[in-house]
Amino acid sequence: MPLTLRAVDIIAKKRDGLELSTAEIEFFVQGYTDGRIPDYQAAAWCMAVLLRGMSAREVTDLTFAMARSGKVLDLREVAEWVMDKHSTGGVGDKTTLVVAPLVASAGVPVGKMSGRGLGYSGGTIDKLESIPGYQVGLSHAQFIRQLREHGIVVAAQSAELAPADGKFYALRDVTATVESIPLIASSIMSKKIAAGATGIVLDVKVGRGAFMKTLEAARELAQLMITIGEAAGRRMAAVLADMDQPLGQAVGNALEVHEAIRVLQGEGPSDVRDHCLTIGALMLVLAGRVAQLEEGRALLTRHLESGAAWRKFVAWITAQGGDAAVLEHPEQLPRAALVEVMPAPRAGYVAALDAQVIGQASVVLGAGREQKGDPIDPAVGIMLHKKVGDAVERGEPLLTLYANREERLAAAREMLRAAWRWSDTPPSPVPHIYEIIPAALRS
Amino acid sequence: MPLTLRAVDIIAKKRDGLELSTAEIEFFVQGYTDGRIPDYQAAAWCMAVLLRGMSAREVTDLTFAMARSGKVLDLREVAEWVMDKHSTGGVGDKTTLVVAPLVASAGVPVGKMSGRGLGYSGGTIDKLESIPGYQVGLSHAQFIRQLREHGIVVAAQSAELAPADGKFYALRDVTATVESIPLIASSIMSKKIAAGATGIVLDVKVGRGAFMKTLEAARELAQLMITIGEAAGRRMAAVLADMDQPLGQAVGNALEVHEAIRVLQGEGPSDVRDHCLTIGALMLVLAGRVAQLEEGRALLTRHLESGAAWRKFVAWITAQGGDAAVLEHPEQLPRAALVEVMPAPRAGYVAALDAQVIGQASVVLGAGREQKGDPIDPAVGIMLHKKVGDAVERGEPLLTLYANREERLAAAREMLRAAWRWSDTPPSPVPHIYEIIPAALRS
Repeated sequence: MPLTLRAVDIIAKKRDGLELSTAEIEFFVQGYTDGRIPDYQAAAWCMAVLLRGMSAREVTDLTFAMARSGKVLDLREVAEWVMDKHSTGGVGDKTTLVVAPLVASAGVPVGKMSGRGLGYSGGTIDKLESIPGYQVGLSHAQFIRQLREHGIVVAAQSAELAPADGKFYALRDVTATVESIPLIASSIMSKKIAAGATGIVLDVKVGRGAFMKTLEAARELAQLMITIGEAAGRRMAAVLADMDQPLGQAVGNALEVHEAIRVLQGEGPSDVRDHCLTIGALMLVLAGRVAQLEEGRALLTRHLESGAAWRKFVAWITAQGGDAAVLEHPEQLPRAALVEVMPAPRAGYVAALDAQVIGQASVVLGAGREQKGDPIDPAVGIMLHKKVGDAVERGEPLLTLYANREERLAAAREMLRAAWRWSDTPPSPVPHIYEIIPAALRS
Repeated sequence: MPLTLRAVDIIAKKRDGLELSTAEIEFFVQGYTDGRIPDYQAAAWCMAVLLRGMSAREVTDLTFAMARSGKVLDLREVAEWVMDKHSTGGVGDKTTLVVAPLVASAGVPVGKMSGRGLGYSGGTIDKLESIPGYQVGLSHAQFIRQLREHGIVVAAQSAELAPADGKFYALRDVTATVESIPLIASSIMSKKIAAGATGIVLDVKVGRGAFMKTLEAARELAQLMITIGEAAGRRMAAVLADMDQPLGQAVGNALEVHEAIRVLQGEGPSDVRDHCLTIGALMLVLAGRVAQLEEGRALLTRHLESGAAWRKFVAWITAQGGDAAVLEHPEQLPRAALVEVMPAPRAGYVAALDAQVIGQASVVLGAGREQKGDPIDPAVGIMLHKKVGDAVERGEPLLTLYANREERLAAAREMLRAAWRWSDTPPSPVPHIYEIIPAALRS
C-alpha cells in the first residue's frame, strides 16, 4: 500500500473490481467534499462503482463517510426511539403526511427531514408547502424543540447534513451514475443517519412508477439499507410496496394533501389507508411501543377512528406555521382554474395504470419539476377515479385533470391516453405490499 | 432517438453496454473539445468505455472524430506513399532513429511526428534533442518542405493536430482510464491519421516493459489500429515485438543516439539491427518499393552496409539543425560525470532482464520523467552488457550506470539488483518478433 493515498489509484482499484479499504473510501469522500479531489475523478469513480459494484462493507463505509462529512444530529436527547421513514419515491405517495401524525398520536416521536420532488416522483416538502404558511426550513434547534414539544416535526433536508451526498448526487445526476444500488443506498442512508432518528422504516417502491423496476432490485436495495442502518445502531425495517400504479387517487400537491386529510379523518382510498397503517405499525414495533405488526395496525386504526391522529396532524401543521383553517376547509387549498374529466374510451377492466406516465403527465401539468429549482404549481394534478381491477363502462369518468394552462392541459391529456391498459376479464389481483423485511415483523 | 443529443444520455447508453452511433460519438468528441461537455462527463464516459468496450466501428468513429478535431495534414502533396511508424512504447527503443533514415535512403519518404517520454517509456523527441542543435518544433510548412527536400522529417507532435486526443489523454491520465484498448487505439491512430502519412507500420511492444503485458492484448490492439487505419485509407502493418527485456544495450537519450549511430554504421547490437530491418522492410512493402519482406530486408541491409543509410541520417539531422560533427564524433554527445560498472553477483545464465525495472531505474537516474514537463538529463542512463540467454561469470560486468548525481546513482543501483533473474542452464531462446500482421507480409 502506498504511503500516500492518491485518488487515481483508488479509482483504478475500483475499476479493476477490487474492494476498497475504509481508509481509501474516507480519503475519497473527504477529498471530494473539501475540493481536493476534482469532479472528474469523482465521476470516473462513480462510474467504476456503478459498473463494478461494492461490498456491503464498502457501502457502509461510504455511507458513514458521507454522513460524517457534515453535522450529525443525535435525537436521543429527545427520546430513545425517534422514528423516521423514507420512501424511495413514487407517484401519489402522500404516506408521510398521514403516517407522521398517526405514529406521533400513539406517543412515538417522529422526526423527519424530507426532500423535494424531481422528475415524476413527488416530494413531501412540496406537498406540505401547498398548505399556506407551513414552514419547511427549520434550524436544527427549531427541529429539536418542535420534536420535544409536539413529538412530530417534518422539515426540509438541511444542507448542513451529509454535504458530501449533496455534492455526489449533483454529479451523479449529470454523469449517468444515478442507477447504482450501492450509490443509492449510501445516498439515502447517509442523510437518514445524519438526521439522527434511531428507528427508520424504508418504503421501497417497485414497479413502473418506481426507480426500482423489479422486486429483486428493490429487495437488494432494502436489504443493503437495513445492513447499513443496523451497522449505525439504528433499528430498521422495510416494506417493498407496489408502484406499478399510483398510490391512492390523488397525484399533485394540494390534491394529495386533501387526500391525506381524508385518510386522517377515517375516509380516503383504502390502499393509502392500508399502506399507512402498515408503515406506521412497523414504526411502533421498532420503537417498542407494540410487539407485533397487527397489534400496531389495530392501535393505529383506533387512533384514526377516534380522531387522535387528525388532532395530532392539526397540531403539527399549526406548530410549523400552517393555516389550520385550511385543514378544516380543504376547499381553501390552492385550486386549479381548469378542470376536465377524461371518460373511458371503452368498457372493460383496468388491467394496468402506468404510474410513470401519470407522474410524467402531472409534471407536464406543473405539479413536478423537470430540473432542480423549477417552480411548481401546488394546485394542479390528477384525480384517478378508476384503478387496476376496477370495472368501467364506456364513457364513465376515468380521471379528472386539474390545470392552470390550456396548453399544459392538452399535452397532459395526450400523454394520459397511453397510461391505461384494458382487459375484458377481471385481472388477477396484485398485492399492494410484496414483502416486509425482516420477515419476522410480518405478522 | 431524442431530437437533441445530450451528453448524459450518451454516457448512460455506453454505461448500459450499447453501441453508440456515429452522430453520438461525434457530438461527444466535439462537445468535449470545445468545452461544452465538461471534464466530469468525459471522465464518466471514459470509464464506461473502459469497462464496457467499443465495437471496431465505434472506435473508428471515435478516432476520426478526434483526428478531425484539429488540422489534418495531407502528405500526398509530397508523394503518394509517405511512411510513418509508431511504437507503443518501450525501454531502449531507438528504432525510429535508425529506421527513418534507413527507409528514406531507399527512396521512400518518411514523415513522422513523435512524442516525448513519460514514465519508464522513452520518447524519440527526447533522444533527438540530445543532439546539439536539433530542432523538434517545426511548423506544418517546414515539416512538408523538409519532407519534400530530404524525403525525411521527424518533428514533435503538433498541438494543432488532434487536440481532442490531447484533452482526452490528459483526463484519462488522472482518472485511471488509460488502460483501455479502444481508447489507446483511437488515441494513437487519431494522431497518426491527422499527421498525414499514407502508410503506417505499428511496432506493438509486449511484455514486462510494455504497456501490453500479453500477446493477446497486443494482438487485439494491433488488429484494431490496422482496422482503423485501413478505414482511413491508409496502408497498415504491425509487428508484435518483445519488450520483456530492453531493445539493444543502451537505455538513456544520448546513449541511445550513440547506439543508433553504431547500427547505422553497420555495427551495434544485432537485435536492434534486426528489428529495424523488419520494421523498415515493412515500410518498403507498404510503399510498394518491394514486393516481399525479405526483399526489403535485403535491400535495407545493402543500404546499411554501403553507408547510404548513414549518409541519409547525417543529411536529415543536419537539415533539422543538428550538429553533424557530433554524429561523426559521438563522444561529443552529452556525457555523464559518474560511471559505475555493476558486476554479476553470481555465475550462470541470464534468464530474464526486466525492462520495466531497467526503465524505472533510468528515470531515477534522470533519463526520463515522472510527470509531464519534468526536465530530463540527456547524458545519463544504462548500458547493458549482458542480455537474456548470455552466459556470465561471477564478477563480470553486467551493466554500466551513467549518472550525474550520487544519490540518484545509489537509488538506481538498488533498483537494478531486482532486474535480473538467473538460471544454471541456458534458457530456451525467446523470439524477438512474435508476429507480423497481416500474416501475408511475413515472408
